[in-house]
Formats: sequence, C-alpha cells, structure tokens
Amino acid sequence: MVRVNNNFSKIRESYLFSEIAHKTAEYRSSHVDAKIISLGIGDVTRPLCNEVIKSLHTAVDEMGVQETFRGYGPEQGYKFLIEKIIKHDYNSRGITLDADEVFISDGAKSDLGNIGDLFDTDNLVVVTDPVYPVYVDTNIMAGRADNIMYMSCSAENNFIPTLPEKTPDIIYLCYPNNPTGTTLTKSELKKFVDFAKEKGSLILYDSAYEAFITEEDVPHSIYEIPGAKDVAIEFRSFSKTAGFTGVRCGYTVVPKTVKASAPDGSLIALNKLWNRRQCTKFNGTSYIVQRAAEAVYSPQGQKETKENIAYYLNNANFIREGLASIGMQVYGGVNAPYIWVKTPQGMGSWDFFDFLLEKCNVVVTPGVGFGPSGEGYVRMTSFGTKENCEEAIDRIKKILI
Amino acid sequence: MVRVNNNFSKIRESYLFSEIAHKTAEYRSSHVDAKIISLGIGDVTRPLCNEVIKSLHTAVDEMGVQETFRGYGPEQGYKFLIEKIIKHDYNSRGITLDADEVFISDGAKSDLGNIGDLFDTDNLVVVTDPVYPVYVDTNIMAGRADNIMYMSCSAENNFIPTLPEKTPDIIYLCYPNNPTGTTLTKSELKKFVDFAKEKGSLILYDSAYEAFITEEDVPHSIYEIPGAKDVAIEFRSFSKTAGFTGVRCGYTVVPKTVKASAPDGSLIALNKLWNRRQCTKFNGTSYIVQRAAEAVYSPQGQKETKENIAYYLNNANFIREGLASIGMQVYGGVNAPYIWVKTPQGMGSWDFFDFLLEKCNVVVTPGVGFGPSGEGYVRMTSFGTKENCEEAIDRIKKILI
Repeated sequence: MVRVNNNFSKIRESYLFSEIAHKTAEYRSSHVDAKIISLGIGDVTRPLCNEVIKSLHTAVDEMGVQETFRGYGPEQGYKFLIEKIIKHDYNSRGITLDADEVFISDGAKSDLGNIGDLFDTDNLVVVTDPVYPVYVDTNIMAGRADNIMYMSCSAENNFIPTLPEKTPDIIYLCYPNNPTGTTLTKSELKKFVDFAKEKGSLILYDSAYEAFITEEDVPHSIYEIPGAKDVAIEFRSFSKTAGFTGVRCGYTVVPKTVKASAPDGSLIALNKLWNRRQCTKFNGTSYIVQRAAEAVYSPQGQKETKENIAYYLNNANFIREGLASIGMQVYGGVNAPYIWVKTPQGMGSWDFFDFLLEKCNVVVTPGVGFGPSGEGYVRMTSFGTKENCEEAIDRIKKILI
Repeated sequence: MVRVNNNFSKIRESYLFSEIAHKTAEYRSSHVDAKIISLGIGDVTRPLCNEVIKSLHTAVDEMGVQETFRGYGPEQGYKFLIEKIIKHDYNSRGITLDADEVFISDGAKSDLGNIGDLFDTDNLVVVTDPVYPVYVDTNIMAGRADNIMYMSCSAENNFIPTLPEKTPDIIYLCYPNNPTGTTLTKSELKKFVDFAKEKGSLILYDSAYEAFITEEDVPHSIYEIPGAKDVAIEFRSFSKTAGFTGVRCGYTVVPKTVKASAPDGSLIALNKLWNRRQCTKFNGTSYIVQRAAEAVYSPQGQKETKENIAYYLNNANFIREGLASIGMQVYGGVNAPYIWVKTPQGMGSWDFFDFLLEKCNVVVTPGVGFGPSGEGYVRMTSFGTKENCEEAIDRIKKILI
C-alpha cells in the first residue's frame, strides 16, 4: 500500500496565528464596541504603485493579441527582469552576477522551501531562535528533524547568533530579521561567511526585508561580503519591497561558485542542481507578474515603492520611539518593518498579549510563537495605517506610563 | 561540508528538445530560404480570450486601490475560484467535492512535482512508456530511481497500459495522454481504479488535456469512476484549457477520503498532508491570475475558450485525416492536441524526423524521446496556425504518397 512520508508527523503544529485569531474573536464577541487595532499583521496593506499597475495593464493587453501573446516562458525567468535585478540590486553595490545565476520564482517562501530538494537528508542544519518557521518545518519534512540546531538570539547577546560547537552544514540566516527586526553589520556577517568558507558550510541567506535597510553598515546583500559568492545562496522577494504579497514574485541567487560535495568526493555546483530542480518541478513565473516586477526598477517605480517603504518605516519609528519614551526595551524597526518588544516586568509573551488586548484593544504577536528564545517578547509590525499605529501606541503609552 | 542530494546524478539528461533545436538550426543555416513549419510545438499560440483579459484588467485595477488591494491570499486558493471549479468541472458531471478538497496552484507541473513530498521514498511507482518525463525525473530526485516500473504503450496493445506483476504503490496516469494523444474509456479506467482499491495503490491522475475530449465514453475526471475518490488525486491545468501556459494556474483535487499508511499502520488523509505541504512551501497563487481563471468559467469565457480548443482540434483533425488518407497509421488527435504517428516502413523516430525536416521542412518530435516504446513514432501537435498545419500536411502528403 502507498506509504506516507512519515516526517510530516514530526512537524509541530503551530497554533500561533489561529490562537491569536481565536483570542481576538473571543474578546470581540464579549466587547462588541471595542475598536481593536492589529499590530500583529505580517502583510502589506498599501496598494501596488501606479508604475506597477501600468505595467500590468500593458502586459495583460499583450496577452490578448496573437502577435504579442506569450506562452511558456523560461523556467528561470525572463531576461528582461533578471537584467534589471542584477543592475539595480547587485551591480549598484559592486556585485557582479551572470544572468544564469538569478532565478525568478513565485516567491521566496517557495524557494526557501524547495531549496531543500538539493541536499542530502543527513546534512546538519542550524537556524536562529526565534525563527521564521518555514526553515524548520521544511527541514523536518525532508527528514532532518534530528539534524536541526538552534542559535538563541535575545537582548543578552544583542541578537547576534553564536554558531554552535558542532559544525553545521547548512546555516539559515534572515536579515533584516523576521521576527526580531534586528540586523547584522557587515563585520558580523563576515564572521559567518568566513566560518562557512573555512568549514565548507552553506549559508541560505533570506533577505526578504532588504528594502527596509536605512543604516550604512548593514549589508543589503550577503555578496557584499568578500568570499560570500563561494558559500551563499540569497533569497529575495518583491513581497515587502513592492507590496507583491498577493502578486507573487521573488528571486533566488545561486552563484556558480557555490558548491556542495557528492558521495565520491567531487564538488557539484548548486547552480546546476537548482536549475535542474526548477526545470523539472516548476514552469516559470507568470509573464504578467514578471512585467510588474520589472516596473519596480523604473525610476518612477523606484520612487513610488520607496515612498511606501518610507511610510511603513515611519510607522515603525513611531512604534519604536513611542514605546522607548515610556521606558520599554525595543529592538528592530530601524532597518525592518518589525519591532521586537521586551515585555514589561518579566511578563510572559502570552500574558502581555492578553494584557494589550484587554487593556488597549491592541493585538500583537507573542514572541514565544517563533521559538523558546522569543519568550518575554512580542512582535509588532508597521504594516498598518499611520492612524492606527499612532492610536495603538497612544493607548499603550497611557496604560503603561 | 554540505552534501548534495546525490539522486540528482541519477537523472538522465534529456537532450530531446535541444537536439531538435540543434538539428533544425543546422538545417536552416544551410537552407536559408526554407520555410520551416513546426508541428513539434508543445505550447499554445492563440491569445487569451477577451473575457479573461477583461477580468485581468479589473483585478489589476483592484490591486492599485487601497480599499480593494489584496495581500497574502489563502495558500489553498480563493474560494471564488474553487467554487467555480467544483460547480463547472465536477458538479456538472455528478461529482461532489468540498471546497477544501481543491487546491489552486501556479500550474500542474509544480503540483505533479511537489506531490512527491508526501510519500515515503521506498514506494514503488509505475508510469507509462512513453511518458511525460516529469513523473520519472521527480521520482528519481526523491530517491526512487530503483523503484520505477514502466508500462509499455504502443499500437500493439492499443495504447492501453498493462499493470506490472509487482504491485505498484503509486500509479501515474495521464489521459488524454501526452505524448500519444490516446485516451482510456470509462471501463478501461475503471480497471485501474478497481486495482488501486483492491491493492491500496494511489493513482496520480494528470488530466491537463481534459478540455480536448470530444468522445462520449472518455471520462473527463477520474472521479466519474465509482470509488475513485478513495484512491485518486487529480491534477488539472488552465494551460491548455484556456491558453494559460504563460499565465500559470492549475489545480489539484485531493479528496479527504484518499489515504496512505503510516509506519504504525494508521491511515493518514493525504488532503491534510498536501495542505500542510502547501502552507509550508507555497504562498498561494497570484490573485490576478486566480481572477483570470475564474473568468474562464463565465458563459462568455466558456464560449471563447471552447472556440480556441475547437480551432486546435480542427488542426488535429486535419493532420490526422491528412496522414491517414495516404495510408499512415495515426493515433490520438480526437480527444487531444497530440497526434502520434507511426513512422513509415519501420523507420526510426529520428530517421523520420530527419526525413521530414529535409524533404518537407517540417519539424516533429521523435517519439523515442518520451521513452523506448516511443521508438518508431513521432508526435505532431495541433498548436500552430491552421495555415501552417495545412501546408505542413500537404507537403508531407506530396512526398509520402
């Protein structure tokens, strides 16, 4: 009889967001007049910018006319988009890439999940704690439940992960970080690159929040670090950069110099393997969507998307400064849409969640939901409206002052 | 050091389409005036229908306005599309499905590849020969290189696969078939369903060409067969139905009654596992694209897409009848865009390819490229223009008569 991949049974069911929804709904039902504001929302709320909309309409019209209709595109993505990505996101920072080192996809989550296809089951993996759950769950599904190590990140170590004693084969890093909103400086990231080069580890670098970076010393790409092109795969997304969470487009950079070992001791280029994986299990990203992503790189597209980022960062700053002004410990929010807030008086994450819901009618995300080291923190996001952010923080300040 | 999934090294590199392109280019370079017509093309050529274009424009406009903007959608797809699918593609044939049994994706190829995540490596798999290579390659990648069995299909057995003596755990079926264009009648398909029920096998039913079915006794969905909801997962696509090869939308039906066994002997619903897989490694299909797919089901969308299908089927009929009229053995093309043509005088697939290229300036696909049982056949497709199809067949008839 057909048999399941039993590794699925080892995934811990996460009730984080359903528990939040449940508690919120329950409160709402007994407080029908409460004006509840969510600072828990992890999704953008501002519409696509005009330049993207214009490009989408043009691409749609092309698809309705025999002469300009496009069928199957390259599994790796269209050159028109890849060239823009390389020029704007990499060449502008002194990084050179060949067109066949960039793979367009329907989003970073797909790529971060699917990349695991390339690796032997018995690789040793390390992730941060707290962590974006996709890294952990996809590795468990692939049979690495017993091969996952954690690097605790908290105020105590300034949110800089310490590599474990046992040498990991694969290191997941997400900077700017979800959920903490913290970053690594170039010199801090360099330590990971140097370690990977020395030990033969691979870094999977999730840079989905890159567009939010405002500080000079924070790398936008891991390839700003010398040697990283030998050891790192980078994942990027238009989701948070340009509000594409419902449009679906991301890309993954696999330099041809990144290699992994085969059983016979030979070194295999992961670029070739990823290309094979994508050609076999993926059929390219929607043409229309790729034209939308291309428009992000036009001068007007850059101006408009940056205005949206600035709007969210302004919210982040308001949250951060507002809470700091009443003596709370806040992290992130400078180079990221996320603010990681230490609960007052040693409260647990869920206790503070309940407190904010009941006393302020504000919903946040309990940090412990992202891993044990998130206990004693909550995550707030800046993706709501300015008005809601301001009102939420004003309410919290009034209660906690 | 990081280690690769060595199963990738067991995939046979396919040079089929690159070899065709190479031979064609070579011929063209030495015959610059030749008007080469391709009957090898596996992609649609007619533009999206008006109703789909209208819906795309509306959805794009929604994304540009705060009030109607959509961010992350459900990983499983929007209800507005799922409900249309169930009503039009299933209820209309007496099949009931719950909304959470249908999963929208970016295409059938992704789903057919990713479904393998759900199964233990040591399942025994059977595919037809000739075969769509994705089934084979994705199973090899997942470590089942030694677990794949083949069912030969040729004129000798009327292209009806015979199950192997060893009981397979997973059976891939693609009907209407790529590459042969042949079908199974309801009673023939019933034998597979009955077998699967008896043995505990799972059928992965690829129904991407369903829209081309014209004959009464050919099932549009495997769920027309009693009991199939206990043993089959069905894959569908808008690619060939509505010209979405560059738009990217498909869907997969996983009835809650389809189960597989866990090591402890318990039965696990594959619906739950697929849902978990998709929620973890996929972030939903583009909202705009789902609105486009929805428009296919409107009365006008149905009318227009059926006109396109009729156009291709008319080409298929012309190819089929034209070649039959000069005594060639032809298969498929009645319920499929593909015509499977026996080479004359026992020629090999590639010899006949060369012959048609040189004598008629017509490009076809050598059948042997889809598997050993394809030797002695070529595949012709009906996706070109009417004018080109007619001219190509006229040329072939003049040479072979």
